[in-house]
Amino acid sequence: MAENGTLHDAFLNELRDVYDAEKQLTKALPELADAATAPGLRAAFEGHLEETRGHVERLERVFASLDEKASGKHCDGIAGIIKEGSSVADEDYDESTMDACLIAAGQRAEHYEIAAYGSLIAWARGMGHMEAIDLLQQTLDEEKAADEKLTALAEGGINQEAAEGAHANP
Amino acid sequence: MAENGTLHDAFLNELRDVYDAEKQLTKALPELADAATAPGLRAAFEGHLEETRGHVERLERVFASLDEKASGKHCDGIAGIIKEGSSVADEDYDESTMDACLIAAGQRAEHYEIAAYGSLIAWARGMGHMEAIDLLQQTLDEEKAADEKLTALAEGGINQEAAEGAHANP
Repeated sequence: MAENGTLHDAFLNELRDVYDAEKQLTKALPELADAATAPGLRAAFEGHLEETRGHVERLERVFASLDEKASGKHCDGIAGIIKEGSSVADEDYDESTMDACLIAAGQRAEHYEIAAYGSLIAWARGMGHMEAIDLLQQTLDEEKAADEKLTALAEGGINQEAAEGAHANP
Repeated sequence: MAENGTLHDAFLNELRDVYDAEKQLTKALPELADAATAPGLRAAFEGHLEETRGHVERLERVFASLDEKASGKHCDGIAGIIKEGSSVADEDYDESTMDACLIAAGQRAEHYEIAAYGSLIAWARGMGHMEAIDLLQQTLDEEKAADEKLTALAEGGINQEAAEGAHANP
C-alpha cells in the first residue's frame, strides 16, 4: 500500500486497519451482549456498540480531513481477538464465569484499539494533522472509558461471584 | 476445555492461551528486531525477547503452583497481531517510518498481554492463588514497562524523523 513509503502512507494504512477493526467490532459486540448474563454487562456492550458506530463515522471524518476516501483493509489483529471472544461465548461456563470471560475478551479488544489509536495520534501530531488528532483523541478517550467500565463491572461483583462458584465446585 | 465450567477452568484456559501467546512472541520478536533500524529499538526488541522467555518460565511456575502441567492452546489473538507485524515488516517504508510502524506493532502485542495478565491477576485474586498473583504481577509490570519503553523511543526521535520524511516527500 505504500507509495512513497513515508509516515503519511503508513498513517493511511493504519487508518484503514482500524477502520476495518471498528467495522468488525460492530458485528461482534452484539454477540458478546447476547452471551452476557449480568444486565450491567449487557448494557455496557450495547452502549459500546453505539459508540463503536460513532468511531466508524469519526474515522470517515478523519479520512475526509486528509482528502482521502474512507476504505478498510482486513485487520488480522482484531479478527483474532474476535475469534477468541466467539470461542469463549461457545464454552459451557457458569453464568458469572461466562460474564468474567466476556469482560476479559472485551478488554483485549479495547486494549488493541487503545494501542492503535495511541500510535495514530502520535503520528498525526508529528505531521500536524490537527483535525485528525482531535477526532482520534475523542475515540481513544471512549475506548479507555469502555475498558475502565469493564474493569469496574468485574470488580463490582462479577469476579467475586465467579470465584465463589469455583470454591463451591473446585 | 471447561470441566465444571467454573472460574478455575476459565483461569486454566486463559493461562494456556497466554502461555501459547508468549511462545509465539519468542518466535516473532527476532523478526521485529531484524526489521528495526534504530539501534535503541533493536535493543528494546532483543531485551524484550529475553524477558518473554522469562514469562514462559514464570507461567510454568504458575501452572506448577496449581498442580497443573504447563500446556498451551493456540492463541488466535496474538497470532493475528503477529501476522500484522510481519506484514508491516514486508512493507517498503523508509527507515524511520518502518521503525515507527514496528513500534506500533509491538505496542499492540504489549497491550494484548496487558489485558490478558490483568484479567488473570483479577481472577487469581478472587480465588486466593497467592503465588500465581505474585508471578503474574511481575510479568504484567514488565509488559507495561516494555510498552512505555516503546513510547519513549517513538517520542524520543523516531516519530519526528519519520514525520519530517513525510513532509519532505508528501
